[in-house]
Amino acid sequence: MSSTQDCDYPRILFQYNNGFLVSKIMFTACELGVFDLLLESEGSLSSDAIAEHLGTSVSGMERLLDACVGLKLLEVEMKTFYRNTELSNLYLAKSSLKSQYHRLMYYSKTVYFCWQYLTDAVRDGKNQYERAFGMSSEDIFGAFYRSEKEMIQFMYSLNAFWSICGRDVIAAFDLSPFTVIYDLGGCAGGLAQECISLYPKSTVTIYDLPKVVQVAKERFVPPEERRITFHEGKLGLSCVRLCRLVQCDWLQKSIKTSLLNLKG
Amino acid sequence: MSSTQDCDYPRILFQYNNGFLVSKIMFTACELGVFDLLLESEGSLSSDAIAEHLGTSVSGMERLLDACVGLKLLEVEMKTFYRNTELSNLYLAKSSLKSQYHRLMYYSKTVYFCWQYLTDAVRDGKNQYERAFGMSSEDIFGAFYRSEKEMIQFMYSLNAFWSICGRDVIAAFDLSPFTVIYDLGGCAGGLAQECISLYPKSTVTIYDLPKVVQVAKERFVPPEERRITFHEGKLGLSCVRLCRLVQCDWLQKSIKTSLLNLKG
Repeated sequence: MSSTQDCDYPRILFQYNNGFLVSKIMFTACELGVFDLLLESEGSLSSDAIAEHLGTSVSGMERLLDACVGLKLLEVEMKTFYRNTELSNLYLAKSSLKSQYHRLMYYSKTVYFCWQYLTDAVRDGKNQYERAFGMSSEDIFGAFYRSEKEMIQFMYSLNAFWSICGRDVIAAFDLSPFTVIYDLGGCAGGLAQECISLYPKSTVTIYDLPKVVQVAKERFVPPEERRITFHEGKLGLSCVRLCRLVQCDWLQKSIKTSLLNLKG
Repeated sequence: MSSTQDCDYPRILFQYNNGFLVSKIMFTACELGVFDLLLESEGSLSSDAIAEHLGTSVSGMERLLDACVGLKLLEVEMKTFYRNTELSNLYLAKSSLKSQYHRLMYYSKTVYFCWQYLTDAVRDGKNQYERAFGMSSEDIFGAFYRSEKEMIQFMYSLNAFWSICGRDVIAAFDLSPFTVIYDLGGCAGGLAQECISLYPKSTVTIYDLPKVVQVAKERFVPPEERRITFHEGKLGLSCVRLCRLVQCDWLQKSIKTSLLNLKG
């Protein structure tokens, strides 16, 4: 039940209403390289200097920076000089230790765009990749991987996610009795890395589409890491030990069917 | 400075990242008429019944309703029957006492779409109505009012906003010495209504574009309300007493120029 105060002035509705503005402010500051520049400069810079370095308008940059200060993504001194917060240094620059840059760009460009069609998605009961990108809604990964660039961004994006949550997911169950682990749809190997780090005696086989495996080998998993291997294929036909099942965007019946296939 | 806890698990980044998902869930439930149906039914309904009434898929509706429960916009009994919260009854149905429906639809369809181009807006230092709607970025109100339907939605949207905040704005200064008040860009008259309600001896003249005045007279301000009158024109040429200046989307220099014109 809502409080009377909320009903007089529905703060929560304003917050929900403005949610997309907040998302886009953070995404845009990331995309333009604000956090990268401030991380590299190792200090604070004026809005004029930031605008000049990044090739943007002064008025637009000033507003963006002030919005980031409001969101506590930046700090400002003497109303003039901006610098990263600890959080931004750690997560929001491309070269940050736990950079979320690629994940945020994936959300900003692909997910934000798709969610324009949420009303249609609820009406139709299916994803809207067809309306958004002209790709069949049946072929989810065809849509995710509609170009090599998109595929690589998605792979970086997943790895960024696991860099924050992977350890907690892997530690949620004691997997130490299992030394041979398959990661279905293991993609760029972020979760596999967490797995061999927590269970050093385990080996993890990443099972994914051939083109994903190829890029994972080239860019993400060093060849000297012998505890991570690959298996190319399409999901649903193999009998494997289950570490994780990609559930994103799947209907429940598809997940059940896959699990039955895996048991067969 | 961010806390160490935030740096270990950056909850705020997830919150900002997901802000647009939250906005779109609320907008979509509004657009599909979920809150209207539950207000009219004066009780709770199953997701199947809601989907059938509103002509949507069952799976899509079930997910949407559960998301609304998570956001405290709906309540659920026995994991099956959904009903409005007090807040939703008051603000989210079309027929709600303080309905924000039109404002949310304006944000969902126009603002959400425009904010796809925020990066370009910061680069260029101007609004992106040209990219979004093919309208000149110089003519803001041409973009807002690009069709009669859009104009009416915008007018309802502003009135919805004033129904929440108008009283506080009008009460922020003691305007009782001023009995003749002009509301520049007064649009559908939401703020004027609040003004004559708080200062019954005042009369308010709404100054706006001819087509806006016409619709305001037809749909928003009853002819028997003699304390509200209209003045058709374009902003910047008249000498008027200032009640409020439309600042949305204006650059500071434009506001200063207008104020100088008004003083002249």
